[in-house]
Amino acid sequence: MISKSIIKYIQSLQHKKFRDEFNCFLAEGPKVVKELLSDNKFECLSIYALEIWIKTIDRTVFSHIEQVINVVEEHELSKISQQSTSNNVIAVFKKREDNFDIVVKNKFTIMLENIQDPGNMGTIIRTADWFGVKNIICSENTVDLYNNKVVQSTMASLGRVNVVYTNLANWLKSNHDVKVIATVLNGKPLNSISTFNEAIIMIGNEANGLSQELINISDEKISIPRVGMAESLNAGIATSIFLYELNRKR
Amino acid sequence: MISKSIIKYIQSLQHKKFRDEFNCFLAEGPKVVKELLSDNKFECLSIYALEIWIKTIDRTVFSHIEQVINVVEEHELSKISQQSTSNNVIAVFKKREDNFDIVVKNKFTIMLENIQDPGNMGTIIRTADWFGVKNIICSENTVDLYNNKVVQSTMASLGRVNVVYTNLANWLKSNHDVKVIATVLNGKPLNSISTFNEAIIMIGNEANGLSQELINISDEKISIPRVGMAESLNAGIATSIFLYELNRKR
Repeated sequence: MISKSIIKYIQSLQHKKFRDEFNCFLAEGPKVVKELLSDNKFECLSIYALEIWIKTIDRTVFSHIEQVINVVEEHELSKISQQSTSNNVIAVFKKREDNFDIVVKNKFTIMLENIQDPGNMGTIIRTADWFGVKNIICSENTVDLYNNKVVQSTMASLGRVNVVYTNLANWLKSNHDVKVIATVLNGKPLNSISTFNEAIIMIGNEANGLSQELINISDEKISIPRVGMAESLNAGIATSIFLYELNRKR
Repeated sequence: MISKSIIKYIQSLQHKKFRDEFNCFLAEGPKVVKELLSDNKFECLSIYALEIWIKTIDRTVFSHIEQVINVVEEHELSKISQQSTSNNVIAVFKKREDNFDIVVKNKFTIMLENIQDPGNMGTIIRTADWFGVKNIICSENTVDLYNNKVVQSTMASLGRVNVVYTNLANWLKSNHDVKVIATVLNGKPLNSISTFNEAIIMIGNEANGLSQELINISDEKISIPRVGMAESLNAGIATSIFLYELNRKR
């Protein structure tokens, strides 16, 4: 049985305001919950699961979650589910402390300005994790890392990539000791640039690109060469092609 | 005023069955509708728009749509809207005829197996358009090109890239005159391959990758080198990195 107050609490975690207030976030569905539990980078505060899910998990491996599991009925789970067809399990995890101890030397670091789409954000974090990026620095108006859809599409990469939110221009003023690349539509072709061992790669908003303020701070303006006709590439695609090319040349 | 039968008709176009039956599809919102009208690759059958949208369009440029415009009230538009906040305009366009007249020589062609996510599908078509790909050949169980979410994220690239659905293995049997590349997790590193002038690039389902049947038909198995830890890259990201690299080397 889930009490009304628990239902209210879980539902409130759909909103950033309450995620911040309670310092936790939701993960829904067997795959993402299992990955976050295995990864063990986030403390699990509570789990609401059907009997059927509990049978699938290895209690010897996940002994640390015994105390936080609540068995619920399907109709109860559907009340707290964020998805159109509810899953077998929903878990509440504690958010991590912000970590501004960011090393940019000898690394590729991603900087996101005002990315709005949770799916794009999730894809960017996963792709960053694929290419070994350790830190993503976001403008304050970029979509929340702990947004449910971001969590669903990021999976275990959530624990492996450090994502922080700050004023980007101010942050760059005191951390400008590696090359800062602005990704734009009319810059130098990406394939023509020389080798980098380290860089901060700035990616702009889906509809408007990077702000002039950030472009002005950058050391180089670089574009992905266009062969065909499409007006733009989405932010996730642009990030991934930059990371591929920079790693290839490294 | 929109009649009840029109409302029912528009709502039915959310479903592939009725899009096939009526041979048309929906586009919603000022940006996508304007792009599809400007592009003029799809015949516009009807437009349902608020007065405010009609004021924004250039009637001299879009004279061909005069006869199909219906001015509606906000509460009417919200009834036929597919989105949580309804837009100023919804248009019905005629689907194009399937075009199997596909030239693979001297070109890069994309082949998609069982891609399910409409957002991924839209991103792949737009990215293909960016890199000048003319044809995408999909397995029959790949998400419908005219799915509302695919249309929203594809925009005008919808008219520039030819997308067809067929049995992939059968199709390859009679069109196997260029190299067929399977994108897999444990193949040759993409950056190590030699120059191609033409290829069919096969991309698999988000969760399961390519089927063994298609991998067996391929001439080369190629992977995107992984530096970090993420388990996989999404189908749109994989496609875009392949297209970038193949075009770079061309």
